[in-house]
Amino acid sequence: MKTTINLDIPSLLQAYRSGNLTPATVVSHLLQRAAEFSDHNAWIFLASEEDLAPYLERLQQTSPDELPLYGIPFAVKDNIDVAGMPTTAACEAYRYHPERHAAVVEALVSAGAIPLGKTNLDQFATGLVGTRSPEPWGACHNSFNTDYISGGSSSGSAVATALGLVSFALGTDTAGSGRVPAAFNNLIGLKPTLGRLSVRGVVPACQSLDCVAIFARTAGQAQSVLSVASETDLDDPWQREPPTGNRPLPEHFRFGIPADEQLDFDGDKGARALFAESIRQLESLGGERVTVDFQPFLDAARLLYEGPWVAERYLATSPLIQEQPNALLAVTRGVISQGADGSATDAFQAQYRLKALKHRADRVWEQVDVMLTPTTPTIYTIDQLKQEPVAHNSRLGTYTNFMNLLDYSAISVPSGFLDTGLPLGCTLFMPAFQDEALLALASRLHPLTSDTVGALEDTLVSPALTATVGTIEVLVCG
Amino acid sequence: MKTTINLDIPSLLQAYRSGNLTPATVVSHLLQRAAEFSDHNAWIFLASEEDLAPYLERLQQTSPDELPLYGIPFAVKDNIDVAGMPTTAACEAYRYHPERHAAVVEALVSAGAIPLGKTNLDQFATGLVGTRSPEPWGACHNSFNTDYISGGSSSGSAVATALGLVSFALGTDTAGSGRVPAAFNNLIGLKPTLGRLSVRGVVPACQSLDCVAIFARTAGQAQSVLSVASETDLDDPWQREPPTGNRPLPEHFRFGIPADEQLDFDGDKGARALFAESIRQLESLGGERVTVDFQPFLDAARLLYEGPWVAERYLATSPLIQEQPNALLAVTRGVISQGADGSATDAFQAQYRLKALKHRADRVWEQVDVMLTPTTPTIYTIDQLKQEPVAHNSRLGTYTNFMNLLDYSAISVPSGFLDTGLPLGCTLFMPAFQDEALLALASRLHPLTSDTVGALEDTLVSPALTATVGTIEVLVCG
Repeated sequence: MKTTINLDIPSLLQAYRSGNLTPATVVSHLLQRAAEFSDHNAWIFLASEEDLAPYLERLQQTSPDELPLYGIPFAVKDNIDVAGMPTTAACEAYRYHPERHAAVVEALVSAGAIPLGKTNLDQFATGLVGTRSPEPWGACHNSFNTDYISGGSSSGSAVATALGLVSFALGTDTAGSGRVPAAFNNLIGLKPTLGRLSVRGVVPACQSLDCVAIFARTAGQAQSVLSVASETDLDDPWQREPPTGNRPLPEHFRFGIPADEQLDFDGDKGARALFAESIRQLESLGGERVTVDFQPFLDAARLLYEGPWVAERYLATSPLIQEQPNALLAVTRGVISQGADGSATDAFQAQYRLKALKHRADRVWEQVDVMLTPTTPTIYTIDQLKQEPVAHNSRLGTYTNFMNLLDYSAISVPSGFLDTGLPLGCTLFMPAFQDEALLALASRLHPLTSDTVGALEDTLVSPALTATVGTIEVLVCG
Repeated sequence: MKTTINLDIPSLLQAYRSGNLTPATVVSHLLQRAAEFSDHNAWIFLASEEDLAPYLERLQQTSPDELPLYGIPFAVKDNIDVAGMPTTAACEAYRYHPERHAAVVEALVSAGAIPLGKTNLDQFATGLVGTRSPEPWGACHNSFNTDYISGGSSSGSAVATALGLVSFALGTDTAGSGRVPAAFNNLIGLKPTLGRLSVRGVVPACQSLDCVAIFARTAGQAQSVLSVASETDLDDPWQREPPTGNRPLPEHFRFGIPADEQLDFDGDKGARALFAESIRQLESLGGERVTVDFQPFLDAARLLYEGPWVAERYLATSPLIQEQPNALLAVTRGVISQGADGSATDAFQAQYRLKALKHRADRVWEQVDVMLTPTTPTIYTIDQLKQEPVAHNSRLGTYTNFMNLLDYSAISVPSGFLDTGLPLGCTLFMPAFQDEALLALASRLHPLTSDTVGALEDTLVSPALTATVGTIEVLVCG
């Protein structure tokens, strides 16, 4: 499967500049292509050419030299508002018609990007599987093999990007929703620092921990999207001012990995081998491996669903969950309903526990510059998941659930393929606001692990990023 | 009332250096003096000369040139551990004997300071009045007039300092406990940034918001204590790393005051006049007055006791409050018991509300460099307080309750005297980690408002502090 149009952002911009393509041709081609892949259930709402006409018209008054994302097609998870398209969060009873773009969408559209539609998700962004979407949409299927889960909750955003239906996509990531589907679909998945991107116009899942995530073909393209999307939004109380000055990784950096007995692959030897390969590749880039105690991270991960934070999910779905409980999927309702039970003392006690765990976890940064873990223990078929819908889902969050609780920035990078042909990912993470340093390292690691993009035969063109203090130079290959 | 020994830290150090005084003479004199003022109920535990012998012996092997607080007597609120002295939090049933100093006490003792004893407080640091201490200790009385409240909850620490029984004292400050008693006893009261000083070894009141506070005779001396006490404590998960670089106040600074209709003096015209005078004095120092909307601050203040944070007070007193409810004062039990009722959804919802309020409140820093408010609306007699023990207590927190919730640094500076002879204070506050800039401004304002220290006739010797980026120069007058 090869796309006739190379959707890499620099390639598209080049094609527009040279006059070989126009945004209208690209959009028309992609809408047709999306119809061919409808069995993946990637979309909840796919725009029509008529819907997209105003975006195309606006571009006619400008050029790829003026707008960094001129004519770049993207997809938006259906818990992020796009004006003129309904928002459902994969719950029909929740559907509304936003008048205003979410702040991140607004920034991307202002930069010339074109939203092709709204993508499928685990209902209310609660899940890491991609199967928790009711009819008429249904489970989102993996871009490589429809028998497999796509990962979630930002399932459709990952699948649409991996199938070459868009150049990049927005997701959200509270517990791993931007990283797990990236891993399962051979993509870069960036979960920026909590509060880096505005969450205005995003349906809350667990509000104190919600991030907008970016699915991209390369780390360099994720960087381009991040820098456009990072606009300051004075209307978002959750946005945080980044500290001044980045810390670029030293040339000989130290990376931490969990002790062997703390690694869980759910018995998947192939997954274990891919992770071992990621370690070797990071060493080949000048990294020194340090084995660290991963227990505080694992303990924090468990707090997310076993602790009182699920009360935030209950708040996010109220009053719907109280007034029309059957409007929610049974499994989703089951998880979220527990949020009604906790006491305020439970909530504060768990926050104390988290404070203590973060205090322990943060000591890792005295030993290492960056951490490396698998993104997930393994991947499951849709049938396997049906056997254990909650347990398998929880297990998928082993290496992702703690990230926002502990306030780290993380990126999932493709780590190669299992014998089944399905891809997995590894995750690099660093302290808050080290997004640029992470992207720079990911851009060096990615070409070593994968030579294709998503489920396509497109050759990976991944120029190295150089993170420098305060600024990022994106080295665009011709 | 004049002390025979000048307790200013630089004066004491000078007297030790010249051989005019020894720490043993000073300690002996102060213990005797403390007995003379026993009707104020400032102490829960006053050390004996025998208790203090080890501290004095240790000083014999060193000198005032080696230790910045050599032989400086201080008092410790009885919710902060001093090894060898019991901790009660003004609750007999809670009494325990700590084996280890609290981290801040350890730092001060290492610098040569001598803890004379443990001071009275509103039980479990819940109150701003100083009267909520049961027998055998009883209400702490104002240092100027025993008919008046001392302010709380760090009542004894303020009164001991104001009566010239110590050079400085440690308190705690969650809702105003370090600022209100400073105002009512003509002292500097610094509530440093949340997480600046370690809270290891401090009995929690409302753990996520607890600070160690400093009562001092001058801002310069508060600065000396702060710089010694600020030691990094690897065992305290609540301590925060300060950002690099301070922002000193510009020469022509802008200061914000609440709009007239947002100011509450509980009908006290004298208090209103003193605040007006503080405004004029700040203008005389080069400040430009800006009237700002104080509503977000007032709304945040109300969240503290009306919202779910009281659950933290319940946690702090559990299991005692469940197993022996009568071990607590009725008024304290009444306040804290409400903490058992809230739900986790209440807790998160209030945190969202706070996030939104902080977002609004923080906009003030686009308009001004520092805020100026009264420290309290007024002061009450002990009899007045008995009429309305909860309502008057709440009113005293009008200008203080929001400070830790909104993560600001604050200092109460004496603002002069009412016709009754009782003092009041004004509060300067700035964003987190601007402690040094605040102290520098306070050191310039203080000499304009007061020429005595505490309830003594000691002349105020208050050299100006100059806050510079990264460091503080303390200009010590001869």
